[in-house]
Amino acid sequence: MAGNTFGSAFRITTWGESHGPAVGAVIDGAIPGIEITAEEIQKELDRRKPGQSNVSTPRNESDTVEILSGVFEGKTTGTPISLLIRNSNQHSSDYDSLRDTPRPGHADFAYAEKYGIRDHRGGGRSSGRETVGRVAAGAVAKKILSEFGIKVVCHTTRIGGVSADPDVLSKLSFEEIKNNIEKNSVRCADLTTAAQMEAAVAAAKERGDSVGGIVEGLICGVPAGLGEPVFDKLDADLAKAIMSIGAVKGFEIGVGFAAAGAFGSVLNDAFEIQNGEIRTATNNAGGILGGISTGEIIRFRAAIKPTPSISKVQKTVNTAEMKEAEISIQGRHDPVIAPRFVPVGEAMAAIVILDHLMRNEALHLLKTNQTVNQNK
Amino acid sequence: MAGNTFGSAFRITTWGESHGPAVGAVIDGAIPGIEITAEEIQKELDRRKPGQSNVSTPRNESDTVEILSGVFEGKTTGTPISLLIRNSNQHSSDYDSLRDTPRPGHADFAYAEKYGIRDHRGGGRSSGRETVGRVAAGAVAKKILSEFGIKVVCHTTRIGGVSADPDVLSKLSFEEIKNNIEKNSVRCADLTTAAQMEAAVAAAKERGDSVGGIVEGLICGVPAGLGEPVFDKLDADLAKAIMSIGAVKGFEIGVGFAAAGAFGSVLNDAFEIQNGEIRTATNNAGGILGGISTGEIIRFRAAIKPTPSISKVQKTVNTAEMKEAEISIQGRHDPVIAPRFVPVGEAMAAIVILDHLMRNEALHLLKTNQTVNQNK
Amino acid sequence: MAGNTFGSAFRITTWGESHGPAVGAVIDGAIPGIEITAEEIQKELDRRKPGQSNVSTPRNESDTVEILSGVFEGKTTGTPISLLIRNSNQHSSDYDSLRDTPRPGHADFAYAEKYGIRDHRGGGRSSGRETVGRVAAGAVAKKILSEFGIKVVCHTTRIGGVSADPDVLSKLSFEEIKNNIEKNSVRCADLTTAAQMEAAVAAAKERGDSVGGIVEGLICGVPAGLGEPVFDKLDADLAKAIMSIGAVKGFEIGVGFAAAGAFGSVLNDAFEIQNGEIRTATNNAGGILGGISTGEIIRFRAAIKPTPSISKVQKTVNTAEMKEAEISIQGRHDPVIAPRFVPVGEAMAAIVILDHLMRNEALHLLKTNQTVNQNK
Amino acid sequence: MAGNTFGSAFRITTWGESHGPAVGAVIDGAIPGIEITAEEIQKELDRRKPGQSNVSTPRNESDTVEILSGVFEGKTTGTPISLLIRNSNQHSSDYDSLRDTPRPGHADFAYAEKYGIRDHRGGGRSSGRETVGRVAAGAVAKKILSEFGIKVVCHTTRIGGVSADPDVLSKLSFEEIKNNIEKNSVRCADLTTAAQMEAAVAAAKERGDSVGGIVEGLICGVPAGLGEPVFDKLDADLAKAIMSIGAVKGFEIGVGFAAAGAFGSVLNDAFEIQNGEIRTATNNAGGILGGISTGEIIRFRAAIKPTPSISKVQKTVNTAEMKEAEISIQGRHDPVIAPRFVPVGEAMAAIVILDHLMRNEALHLLKTNQTVNQNK
Repeated sequence: MAGNTFGSAFRITTWGESHGPAVGAVIDGAIPGIEITAEEIQKELDRRKPGQSNVSTPRNESDTVEILSGVFEGKTTGTPISLLIRNSNQHSSDYDSLRDTPRPGHADFAYAEKYGIRDHRGGGRSSGRETVGRVAAGAVAKKILSEFGIKVVCHTTRIGGVSADPDVLSKLSFEEIKNNIEKNSVRCADLTTAAQMEAAVAAAKERGDSVGGIVEGLICGVPAGLGEPVFDKLDADLAKAIMSIGAVKGFEIGVGFAAAGAFGSVLNDAFEIQNGEIRTATNNAGGILGGISTGEIIRFRAAIKPTPSISKVQKTVNTAEMKEAEISIQGRHDPVIAPRFVPVGEAMAAIVILDHLMRNEALHLLKTNQTVNQNK
Repeated sequence: MAGNTFGSAFRITTWGESHGPAVGAVIDGAIPGIEITAEEIQKELDRRKPGQSNVSTPRNESDTVEILSGVFEGKTTGTPISLLIRNSNQHSSDYDSLRDTPRPGHADFAYAEKYGIRDHRGGGRSSGRETVGRVAAGAVAKKILSEFGIKVVCHTTRIGGVSADPDVLSKLSFEEIKNNIEKNSVRCADLTTAAQMEAAVAAAKERGDSVGGIVEGLICGVPAGLGEPVFDKLDADLAKAIMSIGAVKGFEIGVGFAAAGAFGSVLNDAFEIQNGEIRTATNNAGGILGGISTGEIIRFRAAIKPTPSISKVQKTVNTAEMKEAEISIQGRHDPVIAPRFVPVGEAMAAIVILDHLMRNEALHLLKTNQTVNQNK
Repeated sequence: MAGNTFGSAFRITTWGESHGPAVGAVIDGAIPGIEITAEEIQKELDRRKPGQSNVSTPRNESDTVEILSGVFEGKTTGTPISLLIRNSNQHSSDYDSLRDTPRPGHADFAYAEKYGIRDHRGGGRSSGRETVGRVAAGAVAKKILSEFGIKVVCHTTRIGGVSADPDVLSKLSFEEIKNNIEKNSVRCADLTTAAQMEAAVAAAKERGDSVGGIVEGLICGVPAGLGEPVFDKLDADLAKAIMSIGAVKGFEIGVGFAAAGAFGSVLNDAFEIQNGEIRTATNNAGGILGGISTGEIIRFRAAIKPTPSISKVQKTVNTAEMKEAEISIQGRHDPVIAPRFVPVGEAMAAIVILDHLMRNEALHLLKTNQTVNQNK
Repeated sequence: MAGNTFGSAFRITTWGESHGPAVGAVIDGAIPGIEITAEEIQKELDRRKPGQSNVSTPRNESDTVEILSGVFEGKTTGTPISLLIRNSNQHSSDYDSLRDTPRPGHADFAYAEKYGIRDHRGGGRSSGRETVGRVAAGAVAKKILSEFGIKVVCHTTRIGGVSADPDVLSKLSFEEIKNNIEKNSVRCADLTTAAQMEAAVAAAKERGDSVGGIVEGLICGVPAGLGEPVFDKLDADLAKAIMSIGAVKGFEIGVGFAAAGAFGSVLNDAFEIQNGEIRTATNNAGGILGGISTGEIIRFRAAIKPTPSISKVQKTVNTAEMKEAEISIQGRHDPVIAPRFVPVGEAMAAIVILDHLMRNEALHLLKTNQTVNQNK
């Protein structure tokens, strides 16, 4: 047990159930002296919040964050930052019928098998609401990273059968992607395709169904040298961080699964000298070689399954009576998860990068010393 | 730094460079009283060993394991098991030309950036030889798991443009897959396709090139309830374990990236009652829901990139002179990595499962107690 | 950084500053299905609360705990338990004069050196108020341990020059010690000596001074076999847990420092058979041999320094002006810490024992299996 | 289980049994580019080695260390350093009589209870020989610390009834202590008292008995700011590290248990300005306040019990026959452990300091950045 803490030098612990009193996170290892406000965290929480459009659940959560510790006179102190978000909208009775009928595609059955006890109200701890703590903590990580010039963005590249146009995406700058995704409900940076994605979501919703997607993550400004082989490789930790988010079924770095069909001569990124620096001509590696950042943009992708909660009738069992049953899940549920994954994926990616950045600093100390020695 | 230990309750630490005196692993947390011999570990090392066919490197490593601690009178004692494998075949001078020319697709550049110093002989710690320690430790994990009825197998499902036939695979039992993969050099359980894969490998080799692939892992016998949400989910830890293996560019659980194009109504695995037990009619989830095992077979896939070492001429830089250069990598190199990933993937998967099994036992204790109490 | 999490299988994370909005703890790894109420936790917090007598600070803290997660329908669910205690009585302005004058014996200077920034209000994170989170989490640990028949108590054995009578203590049962310590303000189980201790405290207070003490901890019902050599030995982890509490300057297990002057023939505890069980005739070891519990009572002691905050004038420096200064600390401060250490020591000891209990359960599983095999 | 790894950013894993093939350690997180030779490690192992005088066991161990990885061209590479020491002198048959008779004061009984299986030859993993791995790893830590100007020494201050003269010790410099302890078999820096200690040891040996002692540790050159409150405090981690060494029954920092009888006004270390720096007039705190180093010398003490193996007849039980028995332990055993604790204590203290040093460097990075920003 005890799997609710992530990270080593920069470490978050999240807690809270969907329909309990509150959810939250404790951040340990934040660099002291960084300016941070509740508003900055709130902004990220608002991006995660549902009810903003017809593709996300109309549940009206206020999700107001309170900073309970670790910040003094507007700056981090290096002590734990405790973040609290009250659950304001709890229709627990909506879920009474689910006490004995595990929802297909949900964690209900697995939790009951594991713990012997289960908070059936909205999935309890397995609810997507658990990500509130991640996003709040990630907001702090993103703020600290920005002090080092490191930026993270996620954007939807596929919804169901509709994919963003790679040519369109390749012409967008990091900032353009960041701006474009807030212009549509599916968070797709290719604005033309975004409309088609929205139509695909609406069609699925119409049928009482849901649809999956793919989200790409980009991390800019990471210096070469982050990642701790052979187990805590940067891509391995990114994979764990992203796969730990509910509904994620796959993770790729760089070309990912396309590597299976490729030849080495094509896939290897040639080294070259650009403006006096060693860079790679291409970035099929996705910014990581041997588990260590190369200084190029880090590029990953996550496969997100369709929302398991659908109103279409599904087969399940009644565990109390041990007989087969049918279920039609009513209530407020997004017909697609991918767009809401965006802020969560950004949060987890930021946490991984910051954690590795802080694990690596002794090397910088040494490099400084070496410089000093050379001056002698 | 310090990223060479994996696991929590069952924990391995690996060490060793490609052309240093030896490689090895320390296993901490092995259940005491389990019979284990050097021969059982050797058998797995022999599966990893190159030189067995024309698709794997002709380097003639003896790779003899020595058990240095933790086993007494043929049984584990619960104390650390130290495993040592001497490097017997060290042609370090082969690599002299690589001191200042990072190989494209290799970790050479990233290591130099990170550590400021690099063992250039055969990649040093970033060499595939690092996996010897993983396989040795994994052999112990597999032996312990077998005491609990848990079995792991990996098999190649794709090499370059050639994929195994899903219909053929679906008719094979776990044991048939296990047997079939040892009948061909690409470790493909679909024996007809295996020959085509071998041809694809040979063709790439002929051109001085290399080719990628996909390997699927199957884990049978895992009880429902393993995995520690919300960060140490079973699939998240499997992802980290698999992605930490060199050359892996992607990870999927269950349907994986295919989930992106699927509808919820199709992807959700309906619950049903089979022989008095709750099971799922399908297994699109891959045996894990909400990060917890469901009792179904756990199914994952890894995307493996082509061997970066190719004899074809590639562009790189000379870091000492800071000018562009060309490189043609000679020596003994597999033109494909996927088949040799098989024993490594099995090892890491076994380690993850055993680690989570041991992290979970307090629950079993409680269940036992509850039974006792009910008897009062 | 990031040192605010303790434990492995049962893990607590505490947060909060003396004069911030709140303090609290997150518990991860609590066994599911255990009944726990806010009242049970409150009871322990009330034991920690100052203002109960003339030896403890008159600050009137309400310290009401709120359970924010991890408990459903009165039982633990196995998910993180978040505990929140608002700080209700914040006279921050009392501390304005301390912004630039580190208090001797306090962590003020060290925090400023470490973090470059410091919450000077009442010590911030270094305040004794930090222990609220430990006590709240410890209450849950104690409740779970009680389900396994394990009990923990701490009691004051020395204050300044006054020591409890060993003969009196040796005749008291565990329950009598537990009851006696609540009968006096110094938490001494030897009621006659307690009065002298109270007088010693009053005398120090009268002089604007403070006084140190020793607290002994007893843990009953721990089965043989807990502790993970060679680093996570049970006594090593107890030492860390106790030494991590503010003001503790020493830790002993069993005879402790008296071992230095003893002969092996006297100190070794002879094994004997009592009621068909192997026991030791004496318990100089304090219930732990080789870092593993022996089944005897675990006995440890902690040396607690005098309260550093005293009204007597002390020498210090003004760090802003870099010149020497004087300080007389006013406000509400206990003249002795030892009695208030009691509930904190119990909490940390309980957490260590529960953590090791949960780390050990795979062995129990194996023992069960072995029995089954022998039945074949 | 799994308790054989210590440290976080600088991490050691030790392995090996007294009478198995070998013992050793794996070091993870060593700063790259540090010159280290087998000879430097050997020198520390030789200090640990028995047989140097009549107070230590005459067992003639060669204890030759082999560096198996992590060092290339004479320098650390940042990858794991694996150290191997073969066990050359294994008289296992000496121990046959101990298979069923646990030695009083030894871990035999506790190991058997924990693991259900035990390597009875010389205590197996619980043997003092386990410390070989600690000392080898500590030699690397000491070498790295010396690059930062940090030095560690331990010296015996008490054996049985004989204590070193505090006045003599207070006049010795760090280097004098370091030199003096190698001039006598008890490693006492007060050379006059050393002779009396040697006599006390000889007298105990004569009677077939053994005697305890106290060892003090001094750490110089640690900058202010090391230690991670509230759990990974520097003194808490030192306590764990020292208490994890076999035979240690107590730990003190600064004045330690003497704090119990002291007044706050006497114990508090006044701050003052010395040569433009803030220092304390006294160092009762032992160089650590609030779990963070203050920049003063760190001073700790360990209480070491008498060797449990004595030739005097002791009572024990025969566990196979479940009846009481007698035991007289023959063979080569030191009549005192304290002097041999010295190199082990130094090793563990060095490991703790280096670990915390490396955990703290992100702060230094930030300080550097702030300077840079101010220059803009």
